Amino acid sequence: MKGIYLVTDPGLCREKSVELTVADALRAGVGCVQLREKNSGTRAFVETAIRVKASMAGFDVPLIINDRIDVALACGADGVHIGQDDMPAVLARKLLGPDKIIGLSVESWEDVEAAQELDVDYLGVSPVFPTTTKTDTKTVWGLEGLSRIRTFSRHPLVAIGGLDLSNARDVILAGADSIAVVSAICGTEDPYGAAKKLCDTVNPIIK
Amino acid sequence: MKGIYLVTDPGLCREKSVELTVADALRAGVGCVQLREKNSGTRAFVETAIRVKASMAGFDVPLIINDRIDVALACGADGVHIGQDDMPAVLARKLLGPDKIIGLSVESWEDVEAAQELDVDYLGVSPVFPTTTKTDTKTVWGLEGLSRIRTFSRHPLVAIGGLDLSNARDVILAGADSIAVVSAICGTEDPYGAAKKLCDTVNPIIK
Repeated sequence: MKGIYLVTDPGLCREKSVELTVADALRAGVGCVQLREKNSGTRAFVETAIRVKASMAGFDVPLIINDRIDVALACGADGVHIGQDDMPAVLARKLLGPDKIIGLSVESWEDVEAAQELDVDYLGVSPVFPTTTKTDTKTVWGLEGLSRIRTFSRHPLVAIGGLDLSNARDVILAGADSIAVVSAICGTEDPYGAAKKLCDTVNPIIK
Repeated sequence: MKGIYLVTDPGLCREKSVELTVADALRAGVGCVQLREKNSGTRAFVETAIRVKASMAGFDVPLIINDRIDVALACGADGVHIGQDDMPAVLARKLLGPDKIIGLSVESWEDVEAAQELDVDYLGVSPVFPTTTKTDTKTVWGLEGLSRIRTFSRHPLVAIGGLDLSNARDVILAGADSIAVVSAICGTEDPYGAAKKLCDTVNPIIK
């Protein structure tokens, strides 16, 4: 989990479909794509996921499904991202097997400590800065909180929440392995250009 | 799929929890329990499902999960019930394997015809009568529509929508194998008594 991590938001993508936004982001060099569909039914989510998965053939970039392990299994995704109110990580691992990617959001220090013992592949440090895309989160970690997690955790860290071109470099230097963005790509007129600038900023400084 | 089929509704169960309502319904002799949780997060749904599944030990009654195949797999349920906007039946069968129960709602004659070729275990004929519990349905089948499906379909039929003690007998005589109820059990002061009366009415006349 390295570089720019695109999280899709169908509402923000608007007339530019999720598939076209993902295609732009892949061309620009993002390192991971997560589909997040909070308001669609299972069938619509599965159908989008199958189309996106097919469109990612030829790119060595994982497709992660937010929350829904059934959707991940149905579309052959590379993994899931779960929050603290989603499927418990132990059950998620059981359902997905040893090889799929599981990302887990940490929203408190208790979450960070509990995650240390869990068989997950990365932590989503959420939110690093205040954000309007996701409003059900608790702690705002800030760069200091992120660094504190970096010192403690054995897992790669994906930072999310209020991240864009203006702060991506600082967030990587504070310890993130990857910068997750929603509106900084989905909410723009030119997703390819926005993703390209983010990749050009972040990729040279990641280990 | 025979007799009374309880579909839970956490909103209607109110102070009487879903688990206690299920326990009452099992004692009264229902033939199937479906958990439907439209508004809770995945973790809460899974936790409820695991508790309900444990409480059903010793009863030879299947536990069906509405829509969510991930929840069904996580709690070891006996099957899922899917609507036309949920996971496509072919994918559901692939994820669940050959032995789990899959029920499919049919809301139009096209759905009934398409279901004939599908590897599902029963059809949910929805709604037979107008209902306030579920408002996103299309056709109201009526007893005539139900009989027409009975004549055509190779699958067992679970009738749902506006069913209660006053019409359960007629619905069985029109061709249903099972009577699904939500508010006629969950929305009552005495779920055990309500379920018992329904079972006493329906069980003697089912084949």
